[in-house]
Amino acid sequence: MQLGMVGLGRMGANIVRRLMRDGHECVVYDVNPDAVSTLADEGAVASTDFADMAAKLEAPRAVWLMIPAGLTGAVVDEVAEALEPGDIIIDGGNSNYKDDVRRAAKLKDRGIHYVDAGTSGGVFGLERGYCLMVGGPDEAFARIEPVLRTIAPGAGDIDRTPGRSGDHAPEELGYLHCGPSGSGHFVKMVHNGIEYGIMAALAEGLNILANADAGVREAEHSAEIAPLEEPEFYQFDIDTPKVAELWRRGSVISSWLLDLTAAALEENHTLDGLAGRVSDSGEGRWTVKAAVDVGVPAPVLASALFERFASRGEDHYANQLLSAMRLQFGGHKELPAGDVLEAGSRKADSE
Amino acid sequence: MQLGMVGLGRMGANIVRRLMRDGHECVVYDVNPDAVSTLADEGAVASTDFADMAAKLEAPRAVWLMIPAGLTGAVVDEVAEALEPGDIIIDGGNSNYKDDVRRAAKLKDRGIHYVDAGTSGGVFGLERGYCLMVGGPDEAFARIEPVLRTIAPGAGDIDRTPGRSGDHAPEELGYLHCGPSGSGHFVKMVHNGIEYGIMAALAEGLNILANADAGVREAEHSAEIAPLEEPEFYQFDIDTPKVAELWRRGSVISSWLLDLTAAALEENHTLDGLAGRVSDSGEGRWTVKAAVDVGVPAPVLASALFERFASRGEDHYANQLLSAMRLQFGGHKELPAGDVLEAGSRKADSE
Amino acid sequence: MQLGMVGLGRMGANIVRRLMRDGHECVVYDVNPDAVSTLADEGAVASTDFADMAAKLEAPRAVWLMIPAGLTGAVVDEVAEALEPGDIIIDGGNSNYKDDVRRAAKLKDRGIHYVDAGTSGGVFGLERGYCLMVGGPDEAFARIEPVLRTIAPGAGDIDRTPGRSGDHAPEELGYLHCGPSGSGHFVKMVHNGIEYGIMAALAEGLNILANADAGVREAEHSAEIAPLEEPEFYQFDIDTPKVAELWRRGSVISSWLLDLTAAALEENHTLDGLAGRVSDSGEGRWTVKAAVDVGVPAPVLASALFERFASRGEDHYANQLLSAMRLQFGGHKELPAGDVLEAGSRKADSE
Amino acid sequence: MQLGMVGLGRMGANIVRRLMRDGHECVVYDVNPDAVSTLADEGAVASTDFADMAAKLEAPRAVWLMIPAGLTGAVVDEVAEALEPGDIIIDGGNSNYKDDVRRAAKLKDRGIHYVDAGTSGGVFGLERGYCLMVGGPDEAFARIEPVLRTIAPGAGDIDRTPGRSGDHAPEELGYLHCGPSGSGHFVKMVHNGIEYGIMAALAEGLNILANADAGVREAEHSAEIAPLEEPEFYQFDIDTPKVAELWRRGSVISSWLLDLTAAALEENHTLDGLAGRVSDSGEGRWTVKAAVDVGVPAPVLASALFERFASRGEDHYANQLLSAMRLQFGGHKELPAGDVLEAGSRKADSE
Repeated sequence: MQLGMVGLGRMGANIVRRLMRDGHECVVYDVNPDAVSTLADEGAVASTDFADMAAKLEAPRAVWLMIPAGLTGAVVDEVAEALEPGDIIIDGGNSNYKDDVRRAAKLKDRGIHYVDAGTSGGVFGLERGYCLMVGGPDEAFARIEPVLRTIAPGAGDIDRTPGRSGDHAPEELGYLHCGPSGSGHFVKMVHNGIEYGIMAALAEGLNILANADAGVREAEHSAEIAPLEEPEFYQFDIDTPKVAELWRRGSVISSWLLDLTAAALEENHTLDGLAGRVSDSGEGRWTVKAAVDVGVPAPVLASALFERFASRGEDHYANQLLSAMRLQFGGHKELPAGDVLEAGSRKADSE
Repeated sequence: MQLGMVGLGRMGANIVRRLMRDGHECVVYDVNPDAVSTLADEGAVASTDFADMAAKLEAPRAVWLMIPAGLTGAVVDEVAEALEPGDIIIDGGNSNYKDDVRRAAKLKDRGIHYVDAGTSGGVFGLERGYCLMVGGPDEAFARIEPVLRTIAPGAGDIDRTPGRSGDHAPEELGYLHCGPSGSGHFVKMVHNGIEYGIMAALAEGLNILANADAGVREAEHSAEIAPLEEPEFYQFDIDTPKVAELWRRGSVISSWLLDLTAAALEENHTLDGLAGRVSDSGEGRWTVKAAVDVGVPAPVLASALFERFASRGEDHYANQLLSAMRLQFGGHKELPAGDVLEAGSRKADSE
Repeated sequence: MQLGMVGLGRMGANIVRRLMRDGHECVVYDVNPDAVSTLADEGAVASTDFADMAAKLEAPRAVWLMIPAGLTGAVVDEVAEALEPGDIIIDGGNSNYKDDVRRAAKLKDRGIHYVDAGTSGGVFGLERGYCLMVGGPDEAFARIEPVLRTIAPGAGDIDRTPGRSGDHAPEELGYLHCGPSGSGHFVKMVHNGIEYGIMAALAEGLNILANADAGVREAEHSAEIAPLEEPEFYQFDIDTPKVAELWRRGSVISSWLLDLTAAALEENHTLDGLAGRVSDSGEGRWTVKAAVDVGVPAPVLASALFERFASRGEDHYANQLLSAMRLQFGGHKELPAGDVLEAGSRKADSE
Repeated sequence: MQLGMVGLGRMGANIVRRLMRDGHECVVYDVNPDAVSTLADEGAVASTDFADMAAKLEAPRAVWLMIPAGLTGAVVDEVAEALEPGDIIIDGGNSNYKDDVRRAAKLKDRGIHYVDAGTSGGVFGLERGYCLMVGGPDEAFARIEPVLRTIAPGAGDIDRTPGRSGDHAPEELGYLHCGPSGSGHFVKMVHNGIEYGIMAALAEGLNILANADAGVREAEHSAEIAPLEEPEFYQFDIDTPKVAELWRRGSVISSWLLDLTAAALEENHTLDGLAGRVSDSGEGRWTVKAAVDVGVPAPVLASALFERFASRGEDHYANQLLSAMRLQFGGHKELPAGDVLEAGSRKADSE
């Protein structure tokens, strides 16, 4: 089928390539003309603006936006100007699902369908396909299903879940109609919230392994610092890059994020040059807020998010306050940076 | 090579089968004679006690224990009685690594090598192979490497980590010499700690999805209960079994635990009959205690553990105390069980 | 000065009494005429509706609302109808500060000042005074300062903070102008978030004490269940009501919430009859959402909130999922309710 | 009565002073002769070693140790050498209760009673008295009760808990016999665990207040960074020192730790010069490990502990891993230190 693609960054361009490879016709647009001409050279139809794109697509049209979330609102409005009742706008970016709900309501008044397509797959998507979580009206979903099927990974060689048989259901092919507009990004949001949790679980565990020699380092401490409770049990020098690789084989925690961890550690055994200031892209925050709204406990997802905040020093004032309180009640001075852990150093001061 | 196997439960028996299939010779023992004769029928050498097993193995011997952790200490002692200097005892069960450290020291005095082999793979191991995390002296590891190689999954069809080339390293074949005695179970312990975290991340996220209709249910509430802040954003009826299946295809969180989740939800869409009292087998606890000992933050792993405790009602007294405090300061009565959420019900009482 | 009071529930009525006791004149209204006549008998001026109240107050007027948060929006609109430019509406309830921001903007167009007064003190406020966190325009704050001063606890016999001298600042008297409209409830919101954290810290700690006999109970377990790692260290039968009382005297954690805990435990040593289904009144949720918005780590406040959700069973589906996964990978059956902890029960199954 | 005091640091010396003031006779010892002579000048009986101290005390003797926990084991042994059956050793320091259990068993063989006295009160104890949590044999507790009564704060002017009447119980006077040896330090340990939780709750909450202007700062961000979801709600410039002072008056969270926070913020409004590297003295760790052992959820206490670890950079390797994973799956580069929050910066990359 025909699809308009707005936004030819890494993901947008790769989706266009994947679509063309499977016989779809793509009319493409980007603010950067070079991005347009590159894809035109590969077989796409170039367009110069949204009106041009609309003219080059047969009604009823479908236009996919693959642009930064901060721009989506404005671009949806502009694209809608160029479209007609019955056309479909698909937001494939990382919008907040609440914006989808609002935009869908607005476009509905004009007869335009709004579909939100949460997309996971990272830089590997061209090859691997993108997992698609789709929200929107039944009719619109049905109409764009051919492109969704192409963009999605397909059944691949993944073992079929026991109990499933016959034709593959859409979810087995890597796309799913999750419900009305907004539900696609809602599911994608929670997906990313889970991702934060899994990443944190791996990172915390490997950090414990990396410190399994605490009993050895402890021995080097000065006399004023009492030892670990049982230093004899923390004498291991664990090779975390090898462990990450090992766990990829047959262990219960084998996962794509573990694959990436192993790759990262293979590439840079000691992680030199990484400051450990971890960004977050919004979905983890929205997930925690959604959990709070619906009253579901999510301590793991929240902890994973808060660890990222703390990695960027956002805990600084709180920590200063803790030090200040300790100074008040016990005259406890702060250790200078770089000094050893004080855990074992128990003064006869009471707290 | 030859291996003695003590303990022919599901895992022990499957390991024996996997070994025999690959040409190794197994002398087997279990307290249950039927388990022994079953395997003898399949080609193993039966033995009637540890002395008999020792007699049927050529020195230097290697005996693998695959028994409940609670029994390991006593059985190690008994087996050691039947062995000679230079022989090897391998504990393939779920021992606390601290016990390994102690046992290895004790056996060293008698010239017997102690190897701990943390084993992951669950009921799928016969077919899939077991991921092996091994601690012990270099010499002992080298001697038993042939059986480790057989028990492990091998390279399989898993994509090779970028940057790795040439012959497969042991960790790429699914087994690793992690360090001295105890280090194998230490790495396995942390593996399971991570597993708890990943499981919790998936469970929390899917619980949020399952409650994405809170705004709908809210509407049914009685007049005394104020609505959600923004019920219009929680109107989704998400099919969690389909979502779990979907995420297996190309998403960032694809993982074996997600495969199991999809399988569980396919088998029992509504999870009927499950009480949600989640057990823990010790490793998650030991991991958190190790994190505390070495001073590494592990809020995700700890939260995952505490959620299991709470699932069994171990938070009950704490919750009663919270209700009791609320009664004191604000005269807040507890809602009867089964009543609606009170989140929106804001009295003009101050807290 | 004169003040109109709308809402004569426990808190509204007590504030009126406190004001009259200090010489202020109160014009009162409630939907329940009995509540009005009770206070009229005590010296207040009764009013029959907002117009009547407005007529009985000299301009510029100040009207305090002490009503359930769910009603505040509508009542503010109605009261505003009866008021004139230059008048002040004070919301003393538990509104979400975002609503304050919105309401203040709306009323500003009509020349009416909106003041939000977060109020803490619980049922003890009549006697003890209410801690007041106030947001609103400077001019309005200055005008109502006399009533704030009366409602607040005053300096009392609390030790003065070292470094402070001279006349008492407002914050030493128990009221504070926190900033523009909304800031009062924002500070109150965070206050309650902290309250949740403190309550949870006390409850978790006392729960540990209540289980300090785990090593004794463990001994009664059946043979299949392995013991605690070190049961000899968990043989204490701690009297938690006495401990709570003890800590009130000179300990670092002495606090009003501890006083309440001691009172609750004195009243009901075993907390019989409490189901431990802990409600939350909104502020804890808003606090966590605000922390997420501004990017500040708040794992303690979030954990405290999530424990309340879990106390009401909102973790159920997540726990069922965990049990379902465990069934998948290891064939682990759930323990029936009421059965002993399984922590020590380590099967030779791998996870 | 007579008491030997070993260790004349701040707390030991103050306890001696408090005892002498109440008519008790103290025989004192310290490795530092100046500390001894200072107290001798104030009326204490100096002693030159443990034998000398024993000679100067009438049997049955009671000797209180107020020394760093790291030294307690050795000093208990030495003191015991100088004592006789029927004598009592009291450890008033911050020992791990497990050491108490072990020491008590050892001394019991020699007929010497071991009492552990967990002591809270900080530098204010001389004036305020120390809250005493005592473990040990009934007979020993009864014998030393007179000194405990003096060291403890007494009933003071704290409101009596409703329901209590008649003579004050020991816990109302500030000391309690918690159970056998070890139980005193166990209760003290949990007390400190709670303390960590309360401190963290206050620190997190005040950190949120300190960032209530995030919406203002956000506006200064560069164009590439998308804004907060609702910056209009984060426009407050909250004066945290004033808020801390305010909450001391009549609020639900009034507490001694809040008093200290207010004092710290009054002394140093901006907390300049504090690095925010927060030490921990052991009890918080032991509390979390005890919670894990007995199977009680303690997410708040654990989070408070982990925040301290993170404040010292112990999360660094974990954070590097998270950055490394993000680089792998999305090509996300780390922001340079000092750059703005990236929360709003949502690229069209999928995660």
